[in-house]
This record gives sequence, C-alpha cells and structure tokens, in this order.
Amino acid sequence: MTIGSFHIHHQDGKSRVGELYTAHGIIPTPIFMPVGTQGSVKAVCPEDLKTLGARIILGNTYHLYLRPGDAMIARRGGLHSFIHWDRPILTDSGGFQVFSLSGLRKLTEDGVAFSSHIDGSKHFFTPEKVISIQRNLGSDIMMVLDECVPYGADYGYTKNSLALTTRWAARCRTAYAPGSGDQLLFGIGQGGFFKDLREESLRQLMDIPFDGYAVGGLSVGEPKAEMMDMLYHSGELLPVDKPRYLMGVGTPLDIVRGIDAGIDMFDCVLPTRNARNGTLFTSLGKINIKRAEYTEDDSPLDPACSCYTCRNFSRAYLRHLYHAREILSYRLNTIHNLAYFLQVVTGARQAIEKGIFQAYKAKFEAIYDT
Amino acid sequence: MTIGSFHIHHQDGKSRVGELYTAHGIIPTPIFMPVGTQGSVKAVCPEDLKTLGARIILGNTYHLYLRPGDAMIARRGGLHSFIHWDRPILTDSGGFQVFSLSGLRKLTEDGVAFSSHIDGSKHFFTPEKVISIQRNLGSDIMMVLDECVPYGADYGYTKNSLALTTRWAARCRTAYAPGSGDQLLFGIGQGGFFKDLREESLRQLMDIPFDGYAVGGLSVGEPKAEMMDMLYHSGELLPVDKPRYLMGVGTPLDIVRGIDAGIDMFDCVLPTRNARNGTLFTSLGKINIKRAEYTEDDSPLDPACSCYTCRNFSRAYLRHLYHAREILSYRLNTIHNLAYFLQVVTGARQAIEKGIFQAYKAKFEAIYDT
Repeated sequence: MTIGSFHIHHQDGKSRVGELYTAHGIIPTPIFMPVGTQGSVKAVCPEDLKTLGARIILGNTYHLYLRPGDAMIARRGGLHSFIHWDRPILTDSGGFQVFSLSGLRKLTEDGVAFSSHIDGSKHFFTPEKVISIQRNLGSDIMMVLDECVPYGADYGYTKNSLALTTRWAARCRTAYAPGSGDQLLFGIGQGGFFKDLREESLRQLMDIPFDGYAVGGLSVGEPKAEMMDMLYHSGELLPVDKPRYLMGVGTPLDIVRGIDAGIDMFDCVLPTRNARNGTLFTSLGKINIKRAEYTEDDSPLDPACSCYTCRNFSRAYLRHLYHAREILSYRLNTIHNLAYFLQVVTGARQAIEKGIFQAYKAKFEAIYDT
Repeated sequence: MTIGSFHIHHQDGKSRVGELYTAHGIIPTPIFMPVGTQGSVKAVCPEDLKTLGARIILGNTYHLYLRPGDAMIARRGGLHSFIHWDRPILTDSGGFQVFSLSGLRKLTEDGVAFSSHIDGSKHFFTPEKVISIQRNLGSDIMMVLDECVPYGADYGYTKNSLALTTRWAARCRTAYAPGSGDQLLFGIGQGGFFKDLREESLRQLMDIPFDGYAVGGLSVGEPKAEMMDMLYHSGELLPVDKPRYLMGVGTPLDIVRGIDAGIDMFDCVLPTRNARNGTLFTSLGKINIKRAEYTEDDSPLDPACSCYTCRNFSRAYLRHLYHAREILSYRLNTIHNLAYFLQVVTGARQAIEKGIFQAYKAKFEAIYDT
C-alpha cells in the first residue's frame, strides 16, 4: 500500500471506518491519539500504550524543539528511535503552543517570534522552519504552521488570519512537496466561528493540496453548542477521501459527536491530564477518585473495563494512592483513562461497521449530559 | 514446611544462603527488600516488582497507620489484598519513623507519644499497639517496637534505652505469642556504638525469643568504619539458626559487606529515592543521569544490565526525561536501581554457593570506594 493512502471501509451516516497507511503502520480510524508532549505520554511507557491498543501518539513540535532539540533527536535517529515507539507519530506544528504557552510573541508575514516558556530565550518559527523541525523529528504525519484565532476574534481579524494561515500552509507544502519523503503533511482549516470563513479556509487548503485536513481553532473557550455547530459544518466541507482530524478535542462525548460529524482523528490531553487530577472516565460517567465516598469502596474503578488498573486495584486503593500523592496514582489513573478513550473509538468503529452508530452515540449522550 | 522455618543451604565464611518460609511463600536469602512506605514501592507497580524478581517488600507501620489506617486495611482483607501483592511483606514497627519524621514526641515506659507529620494529630504507640496494627496489616514478618538511639548518645543513655527496648520487645512477644498466627515476629538489637551494650541487647532478646533478629540503630550518621565495626561485631553475636536483618542499610557495598558479616536480609530507600533524584547504580559505579556528558549518549544506562530500562532506552533519553520532569523518569530509573540491588543479592547467593564470595565482594570494593 502507498504511504498516505486512505481507504474507507464502512460508513454509517457521516461517520466512517477507514485505514490510513503510514511509514510506521496502518492507523485504523476513527482513532484517538494519546498526547506525548515532551517525548513521553505522561506517566506511561511505550509498552503500556501498546497493551492499551494505542495505534498512534502525538508529539509536540514546540516542546521537542525547545528541549531536547530537534537536531539532537535527528542525531538519535528521529523521535521513534529516541523514545522507543515504533508505531505512527503525528507532530503538531508548534503554532498552538506558541500562542498558548510562550511569552512575548509577534506575528509577521514571515512567521512568529516567541520566547521559550522554559528559559525565556527568543525563537522564530516560519512555515519552512516547522517543516524542517518535523523532518528532523521524523513523524509520520506533520502539520502546517497556522494561527489559532482566539474565541471572540472579529470577522475582519479572522479573515486576515485565515489568509495568512493559507499562505503559510502553501509555504509548508512547498518546503515539503508531495512525494518527497515518507512523511505526510496535513493542512489546518481555521476561520473562527464564521461559517463562510471556515469554508473559505478549507477551500483554499484543498487547492494546495494536503494528505489530510484538520479542523483547528475549536475548543478555545466557546460554548459547546457553538463548537458543535462549527464541527458539523466543517464535516460537510471537508474532502471525503482524505483523513479528517479534529485538533485538541475533547471529552468522550465530543469525540463521539465528532465521529458523527465525519471526523476520523482526535487528540486531547484530557484523559492523561485528568488522570493526574484524579478525574476518571468510566462507563458510569465521570468519577472523582478523591471523594470520601470511595474510601472503603472495594469495587473496580469501572466494572465494565478490563484495563490493568480495573482488573487489579480497588477504588479504595486508588483513592489512597491519590491522597498519599504516590507516583503510582498517576500511572494507574492514566492507564485507565487512556483505556477508556481508546475503547470509545474502538467501540465507534464497531458500531459504524454494524450500522448502529446513532445508538452508540446515544449511550454517551445519556452518560455525559454536555 | 512450617512457617518461620529457616534453612541454611550454603555457607562461605560468615556469609550464608538460606530460605525462610512465610505464609506468602519462600524468601531466598540473602535478600533485598524494596521499601513500599505507603502501600506502594514508589513509581512501580506489583507486576514491575515481580518482573524484577522482588521476593518480599517492606511496608511502614507508621505511615499506613496514619493513612489510610490499619483498621481500614484490615477491612480490605489486609495489606496484601489492598495493594495487590501476593508475595511476602515485612512491616516495621513504626518506631524509627516516630523518631525521625513525627513532630513532638515523648517517651515513657508505656510507649511513645507523637504527632502526625501529615496533620499534627496526636497518637500513642505502645508495644501492644504496634503488634495490633501489624496484625491488622497482616504482614508476614512483624517487627517489635524499639527506640532507635541517635548517633552520639552516651553510654548511660544507650544502656537505659536498650533495656527499655528489651522490655518493649518482651511485651510485643506476649501480645503475639509464638504459634498464635501465620505472622513472624522479629526482635531488634540496639546498643548504639558500644560493643558490650550490643551484646547485652542481643542476649536479652535471644532469651525471649523471636523468629528472627534485626540489627537496628546503624547508618544513623556515624562514620562508615564505625558502622562496619559494629556490623561485623553483631554478626558474631546473632544466633546462627535464625534469619538476621540489617535495618535500613544501605549502599550496594554496605549490603555486600553485610552479607560478609553474616546478614541475611536488607531494606533501604536508597535505590528508589536515588532513582527519583537521577542517581543510578550500575556495574560501572554510580551515574548521575542529569550530567551534560550524557546529553547525546546513545548507550544503555548499564551495559551489563538486562532490565526493561536498559534494554529499551538510552542515557540520552533518560537524561531528557529527568530534565523535562517527566513521571516516566521516576519509573524507568526506579526499575533500573531496583534491578541492580536485586541483582546484588542474587549474585551474592550464587557466589556463596560457588564459594567465591570474597572475590564477589572485592568486585564491589573496586567499584565503590567507601
């Protein structure tokens, strides 16, 4: 199979089951990608991720560029070899972190100047630079540099911004022409919360073109209904024959609704970050393991789950580990939350194959009310 | 085999290879016991410990009594069931932590009053109380309440203290008579840095008697030569037909020398605590993984080690994880350090069986200079 080829095997409404071919193997879609910001999915190791059934993980270009540095990783044979992960990796472009994490930043036609959140040192990202970094990392899927417009930005600002994002996307594509390597390059649609601008953005990107298309700039503080409105709208616009990726979203219900809107790929820090805060997703809804009601609860975290944590430990023990601030708390909670999120997409694939995706979605709407 | 029976299979000088029978299985000696203070050996899970070949772990009575509470653990079926560990567990008496961790404390004939390091709440440990707690925990080996005399204590204080420790030991033995359950009870010799007092202490304890004997009150700030002098002296005094346990010691070289002095059991937080600080024990000596020299070092942490960490990750990656404060850093470092310490005692057993223990000890004396 050619790297980058994408086959859709089943459809149920807008939702679809497919397979994306990459240099490090096949990614079944819909898929959830655990986030490995700094070269590690926090609190778990590669073997844990494989046991959990993770098929692809995400690495953050901004973080890895700053520490330990992409050239250093290239000298280690790339990110896969450095972190001991032989399945696919997607790297973002760093744009989102520049806008959300770094200090002073300045946007020009050429790129974006920013200072490191680690030591305040000054850096400059151009479209060509972020491709070069991602080439050094050797990820299977690279993302273009984009500006993620904040919620509340007005029409004029958003229109100018998406035009810049398009020009940057074109420069990324020129820096990495189709067929010039084993890595794929995805474009990112912006346009804020204006449907015509979303359409304009995606249409321009499709002309370039890319191996896949992402929806960026959602889940940036807007009401959930507005996000969903934009999501379903984007689902109508995205090319049907390419993988579609909703960036940085979201809750289990967001993911199921995203699949309903025709999205194939998801990533979010929610399962890993919430795990470390003691918030756990289960077949019975969200559980806060800190709560006194679990003090003497000998039942597993989620009776419907067969992950290592649920097979071997009680809620009482997990609560104790959390309150005692034991490192094992992070690992056991993370294993469960990732198992849950990966099960959400596995279950979605099965439901689509059986043509019962609406019933599957309704189950999540009953558990999670927003 | 009867629980508590101890068989010595090989001897080489004072060092010996044996087997101790407990309710949760056989402990081969010499043995190193990883410390699981609050119901978890920090940063690793029970399956990790089994893969590493750990045969017994230690739990801290003081910590578990304060949080989550021994009665609560008893209601969970005991510590083994609560923490998902089906091999032997040794619990200390809490005495050492009362003297080293807690706030205001007051010693009387009856016991010791102290305040919790967690919330300042007031508590009172008597010999009977610490037996009751350890009965609730259901450990395979219980320890008597003792006073650990600080380094520099004078002869008079030390003599009075060891007499109190003996009276407390006798009360512990009365509270848990021989044969009254599946748990073993060990006495603890004190006597500070006075050889005649060490002798007095052990002789009194042997009259009581116990299922095993510990050497307490070493590694409390004294020069290493003084510790070793006392250790070899205690080795001469301890009964030959019972397991001998050196509490809270120490470095790999301390352990090998302890075995040379006739000690069978060791515990120490060194491998786990140092792992979290980036200090790693290897066949080449101690390594501080933080150091710049490892930035681009693609070799395994210890070329002679076959643990999960050394098989799969480079020094460069371990250094990156440490500097990025990734939780995985704690786990990978802990796995290696425990593998190393467990290999030290496994190697010692093999050397004793072959009658080449002095050569084995010399290897460690060459690597570690003190």
